[in-house]
Amino acid sequence: MNFLEERILKDGIVKEGNVLKVDSFLNHQMDIELFNKIGEEFKKRFEGKEINKILTIEASGIGIACIVAQHFNVPVVFAKKSKSINLEGEMYVAEVESFTHKCKNNVIVSKKFLNPEDKVLIIDDFLANGCALQGLIHIVQSAGATVEGIGIVIEKGFQNGGTIIRNLGFQLESLAIVDSMDAENGTINFRKQ
Amino acid sequence: MNFLEERILKDGIVKEGNVLKVDSFLNHQMDIELFNKIGEEFKKRFEGKEINKILTIEASGIGIACIVAQHFNVPVVFAKKSKSINLEGEMYVAEVESFTHKCKNNVIVSKKFLNPEDKVLIIDDFLANGCALQGLIHIVQSAGATVEGIGIVIEKGFQNGGTIIRNLGFQLESLAIVDSMDAENGTINFRKQ
Repeated sequence: MNFLEERILKDGIVKEGNVLKVDSFLNHQMDIELFNKIGEEFKKRFEGKEINKILTIEASGIGIACIVAQHFNVPVVFAKKSKSINLEGEMYVAEVESFTHKCKNNVIVSKKFLNPEDKVLIIDDFLANGCALQGLIHIVQSAGATVEGIGIVIEKGFQNGGTIIRNLGFQLESLAIVDSMDAENGTINFRKQ
Repeated sequence: MNFLEERILKDGIVKEGNVLKVDSFLNHQMDIELFNKIGEEFKKRFEGKEINKILTIEASGIGIACIVAQHFNVPVVFAKKSKSINLEGEMYVAEVESFTHKCKNNVIVSKKFLNPEDKVLIIDDFLANGCALQGLIHIVQSAGATVEGIGIVIEKGFQNGGTIIRNLGFQLESLAIVDSMDAENGTINFRKQ
C-alpha cells in the first residue's frame, strides 16, 4: 500500500452512492506536505517525459497542480468552467457533459497559454467517468499541443473513465485506484498496481 | 519597485473599465516561481504572527495559497462559492453580494475545518471592493477563530475594499497597490509602500 492509499484509509470517508469524501486533506482542506509527496511520485512515474506545462481544471485540481509543478519546474494553466459563451474567439472551448450532474459545461483555456510546442501533463484530483478529462485532452489537441501524460490522485476504478483514457493510448497514472467501496462498513479496496 | 510591481508592468495588460489582466502569470497561467517569491514576502510581512491555517477562496486564490502555505508549514482551506442552499447545517456560510457582478453568492466552508483555536491567514489574488474578503472574515469569525492577517497579491487602491478592511483593524498586506491605471497608454501607478 502506498502513502496515498494509507491516507485514504485513515482519513477518507465512504458515503452511500459510491461517494468517497477526502475533503479533510485533498479537495477542501489541503495537506501541502501530502501534495509534495504526490508531486515526487508523479515525477518518478513520468520520468524521461519532456514536460513544459501542467494543465488542470478548477477548482480542486489547482492546488495539487501547483505543488506538483514545482517538481517539474513548469508553469500551470487551469481550465475554467463556464456556462457563458461570451468567449471572444480567444479561447479553446470543449463542451463537456457530466454524467453525474446531468449538465453541460464549457471548459475553456485562453489560446495564449497553449501552443503547438507544448508538452502537457494533465493533473486532476479525481477520475470517475472522465468527462472533464476528455474536455482537457480535447483542448490540448485543439491547440496542436501534445498530452505527454495524465496524473490523477484518485481514480474510481469501478467507473469507466480510466479504461476509456487508457484505451485511447494515453499514459494515465492514478496514484490510488479504488476498485470498490462499502459505505456500510467503510471498507475501500484498492487495485494492486 | 518590488518584484511583483515589476512583473505587473512587464506582463500585465490594462483594459478599459479599470481592468488589469494578469492572466499570463497570476490567475489563469500561473508562474510558480513567482508564487514562491510571494510566499517569502508574506512570510516576512507576517513575521512573528502565529499562523496555523491559510484560508482562501476558489478558484484563483487556491494556487497562490498552496505555494504560500509552504512558507508557513500549514494546511490550506479553500472556501467554495455556491448558489445552492443544500448545505446540511455542516457549513459556515456567508452571503456575499458582488458589486461588480450584481449577484449574490454563498461562500461556504465546512465546519470541520475551522475551529476556535485556529489562527488564520487569509490569502487572495485580488482585492477591489472586498466583497469576497468580507465573506471570508465573517466565516472565520463565525467559527470563533482569529484572523491573524490578510495577504493580497494585487489591491486596486482606487476601490474601497482595502480602506474598509484596514479601518476594521486587520493587518492587510497587499504586495502591489494600484492607485490608478490608464488603458489608453497602458500606464499603471503603484502606491508607495
